[in-house]
Amino acid sequence: MDIGKNTETNRKSKAVDLRHHLSDLAKARKPAPIKEVFKYYGKPGVLAMAGGIPHPQYFPFCTLESALLSPDAFTSIEENGTSTLDLSIKAGSNDAERAHDKLVVQKWPEHPGEEINLARALQYDMAKGLPSLQAFIYDYTARFFRPAYADFSVLVHTGNTDGWSRILMTLLNPGDGLLMEEWTYTAAISAAHPFGIRIVTIPLDSQGFRPDALEKVLSEWNEEERGFKRPRLLYTNPIGQNPCGIQVGLERKKQIYEIAVKYDLVICEDDPYYYLQEGEYAAPDARRSAPKQSQEDGVDGFIRELVPSYLSIDYQGRVIRLDTFSKDFANGVVFDMQTLGPGLRLGWFTCNPLFAERLERHGELSTQAPAGLSQALVTQLLVHQWGIDGYVRWLRGLRTQYTARRDALVDALFEEFEKEGITFDIVDGTGNFEGNKMFKADVPETSSASNPSGKDKGIQVSFVPPTSGMFLWVQVHFTSTANPIAVSGFDNHAATHEGKLWSRLADEGLLVLPGWMFRGGKEHQHSDDPNEVGYYRISFSDPTREDMKKAMNVFARMLKSYSSTMAHFE
Amino acid sequence: MDIGKNTETNRKSKAVDLRHHLSDLAKARKPAPIKEVFKYYGKPGVLAMAGGIPHPQYFPFCTLESALLSPDAFTSIEENGTSTLDLSIKAGSNDAERAHDKLVVQKWPEHPGEEINLARALQYDMAKGLPSLQAFIYDYTARFFRPAYADFSVLVHTGNTDGWSRILMTLLNPGDGLLMEEWTYTAAISAAHPFGIRIVTIPLDSQGFRPDALEKVLSEWNEEERGFKRPRLLYTNPIGQNPCGIQVGLERKKQIYEIAVKYDLVICEDDPYYYLQEGEYAAPDARRSAPKQSQEDGVDGFIRELVPSYLSIDYQGRVIRLDTFSKDFANGVVFDMQTLGPGLRLGWFTCNPLFAERLERHGELSTQAPAGLSQALVTQLLVHQWGIDGYVRWLRGLRTQYTARRDALVDALFEEFEKEGITFDIVDGTGNFEGNKMFKADVPETSSASNPSGKDKGIQVSFVPPTSGMFLWVQVHFTSTANPIAVSGFDNHAATHEGKLWSRLADEGLLVLPGWMFRGGKEHQHSDDPNEVGYYRISFSDPTREDMKKAMNVFARMLKSYSSTMAHFE
Repeated sequence: MDIGKNTETNRKSKAVDLRHHLSDLAKARKPAPIKEVFKYYGKPGVLAMAGGIPHPQYFPFCTLESALLSPDAFTSIEENGTSTLDLSIKAGSNDAERAHDKLVVQKWPEHPGEEINLARALQYDMAKGLPSLQAFIYDYTARFFRPAYADFSVLVHTGNTDGWSRILMTLLNPGDGLLMEEWTYTAAISAAHPFGIRIVTIPLDSQGFRPDALEKVLSEWNEEERGFKRPRLLYTNPIGQNPCGIQVGLERKKQIYEIAVKYDLVICEDDPYYYLQEGEYAAPDARRSAPKQSQEDGVDGFIRELVPSYLSIDYQGRVIRLDTFSKDFANGVVFDMQTLGPGLRLGWFTCNPLFAERLERHGELSTQAPAGLSQALVTQLLVHQWGIDGYVRWLRGLRTQYTARRDALVDALFEEFEKEGITFDIVDGTGNFEGNKMFKADVPETSSASNPSGKDKGIQVSFVPPTSGMFLWVQVHFTSTANPIAVSGFDNHAATHEGKLWSRLADEGLLVLPGWMFRGGKEHQHSDDPNEVGYYRISFSDPTREDMKKAMNVFARMLKSYSSTMAHFE
Repeated sequence: MDIGKNTETNRKSKAVDLRHHLSDLAKARKPAPIKEVFKYYGKPGVLAMAGGIPHPQYFPFCTLESALLSPDAFTSIEENGTSTLDLSIKAGSNDAERAHDKLVVQKWPEHPGEEINLARALQYDMAKGLPSLQAFIYDYTARFFRPAYADFSVLVHTGNTDGWSRILMTLLNPGDGLLMEEWTYTAAISAAHPFGIRIVTIPLDSQGFRPDALEKVLSEWNEEERGFKRPRLLYTNPIGQNPCGIQVGLERKKQIYEIAVKYDLVICEDDPYYYLQEGEYAAPDARRSAPKQSQEDGVDGFIRELVPSYLSIDYQGRVIRLDTFSKDFANGVVFDMQTLGPGLRLGWFTCNPLFAERLERHGELSTQAPAGLSQALVTQLLVHQWGIDGYVRWLRGLRTQYTARRDALVDALFEEFEKEGITFDIVDGTGNFEGNKMFKADVPETSSASNPSGKDKGIQVSFVPPTSGMFLWVQVHFTSTANPIAVSGFDNHAATHEGKLWSRLADEGLLVLPGWMFRGGKEHQHSDDPNEVGYYRISFSDPTREDMKKAMNVFARMLKSYSSTMAHFE
């Protein structure tokens, strides 16, 4: 392994003691009482009549087989234009024809100690999961994310929603504070809210958390005023940030991490879109004329192309990273990108050993181990068939696909808006686009498309093409001088301009997610009152190119008709 | 459907309002904010660019296939002796040869709306799970358990450990009380303990909870004295009770239910061994001479052979029943019996609609839906291949297998103890055997096996052959007049007679579970101080007949050598 940091593993120090971060609940968890019994398990000649373990002959499933796509099923080199966006495989087509590998899990181990068999997969398992899967995940994490401390642990969970829920209960007591991005993943808030956890949101710029803002909140924290202690946990979604599509670079990560050290914060790095680092958007002509982007081959080449994880600078073990092979769907908002299939319900924590042990205790008494079938399929696939090289090749293919999808959606937006007479200028970004160049356009009224209304009425639309993730985040400025809507956007979403425009889009057949679903909390009400600025998250993970065009056409037309509405408020 | 109660469904009343039982946490959970968005999903022509749902073409698994045993793979009629105990299928044998059916799940739906496909199974899913699985579970529950109220709901969970953990958090606040059997499943306690929940244990007799004892605890509850409110939740494991093997009959269930109504209790019926109703043990000669026990054919015949669930008398909707297709393994103690395979991590709640809705909200933000692969396999198997008839035939076969296993273990105990000069008398049961006839024997000393030591020293062993479940529960009386052990068995398990004998068994190669792992709590310290009476739970779910004999021989020999130890305390 030629990754610098990893060759220094022996020089890395261990995690600092963070037990003071454990919740009362986590402290109260006892080690499994069975330990005294386990020391006898597997001892030669021991008659194990302790657990009520059913004989595997009583499982009706005798084999498990799956036809597989090849790791290089998708091209990994961005070629010109959009030719890599392969949407030829529609529902109903027979994928199996494309499969040229097969995965087979037998009922019984083929040799002693062989783990991947149904007798094991369909049996109970410890919350740690299959040892060989755990070993793969550990090696993969060491090589890919390079934790900057020596004694990191990995632990499987049943998906990042389960992971986040366990972190909340393991670190926070009811009434504690939680630092989040001002725009964030709704379900991450919904998971914390019932525990009486107070959300404290931090403003974003185009690079992520604004360090000055974070430092200000922490340094000026007034417990009496706030009514609760200074927050100890920070939740972040650093790559393809949901919903803004922000990509946090290494330098910004270092700034945030140093603040975490200074104020003793634990960082939850929920990073499901990590592999979807798509690079800068370029117009079709530029893409066509550009030479094929060369990529370094192999695992380490891919690693070098990706922004490093917070783990790579975590010399104290205060980062809990969430990774997943699957995907969660909580409160209707998709949580994390899938690499193998959301329905597998399988992911993992990377954190210090103290936290890992408590998270495992929690798992033992709630979700337990991820489904054995999923573990068997994934372990057979990754450990015995693809290996890290094959898996990374698969990830490269996925990244290329999502890059082509990003390009297709942004292309469609420009084309369809142009057709409707909406043309963009490049201006300095504002709000969470601050620090980036931003595309911005005035939206003419339907009635007089040839004669755009001035900035004093009507609306403007602006966005920055995302460099990672699966979402386009669009800003709409409602700048009518006469604003007839008095309601607070934080209490009555539907009645705001943001909400009304969203309903018109939906009624016209374009379903996107409105900004109010991603507002971190009421505490932080910056300038973007949804009666002044509306936000819309558009996903490019699934639609065909044709649907992207239709969708952007609906968007353009509805913006224009809404612009007319605004203009009439005079 | 010819089940009396079910024909009266329309005459059943709805569940009473039990919202006052909800915990603060459950009350604080909000409905998913996405509801406003969902109403647009699936609307014809809608361009759904809301959720970041990956295109199924990006799942590497193209098909999922499994060779299946037939539903009648195991005989369902108890034939003479133990001939039905089929242990011929050892690890390494090729089960597939016995399979004469195949299950196939394709990548894409074969017709619109067809649910069982990998594009769906590997995708996100709602916490409710697949509608067709939910429908199967609902019909199955209505027919099998016949809830006595009209509006019961079913909801999938990822296994009974997840189920119990969700119930605890949905109904109890920190510091609340919980009623449990005096001997109970360790992990059920471990799940409650970290929340500061106070366990109040109720004495058992051979029929389950003693109604007089339960009534006494509730009627005489003194909040000042106890320091917490009268408990509102009762946890019970009514069939094949873990660890005692007790089977609670319908009459006793009615008595307990009426007390629950009187004192406004919610009953958690955790019933994983429900189908393992094995009937009375009979000696080999009696079994051979007895005519083949005839069974009614078909689903309803099987239903009539089983003790009804608490649901069948639950006219108010205050029972939450936990069922499972899988099995949990928490704190090393196996939780529930499997019907299809523990590793599936798939089970369900049956309860009133109010509780079901809160339990679903909890699921959305923690475990979410059970793994899609497991749902796909189980739904394909039960809904599209076996149906209820096939599944019930499979369950009949399992019950016969466990009955033969129970017989084999009890046979082995008598044979091997006899060889060692330990012969049993039939006496009235005591403790949790009260009300049953019990087998009891004095254990001679190793040194003079021909001359059994009297009751004033040495030890006695006693048990009642279980009529359900997968465990044999053995009582050992340490009756040496001189008891050298001063420590409290509740603080230092290993130092008690119970603990010391357990260690000797384990060191000699017989691993069983000691009584201390099943003690409900310190509050209730009845006569069985582990220095006077030790308990041992022996599982017959997995071992071969030969191993059962070896195990019982070790048990007999160690009892004798321990008897000598005791005798020397003079």
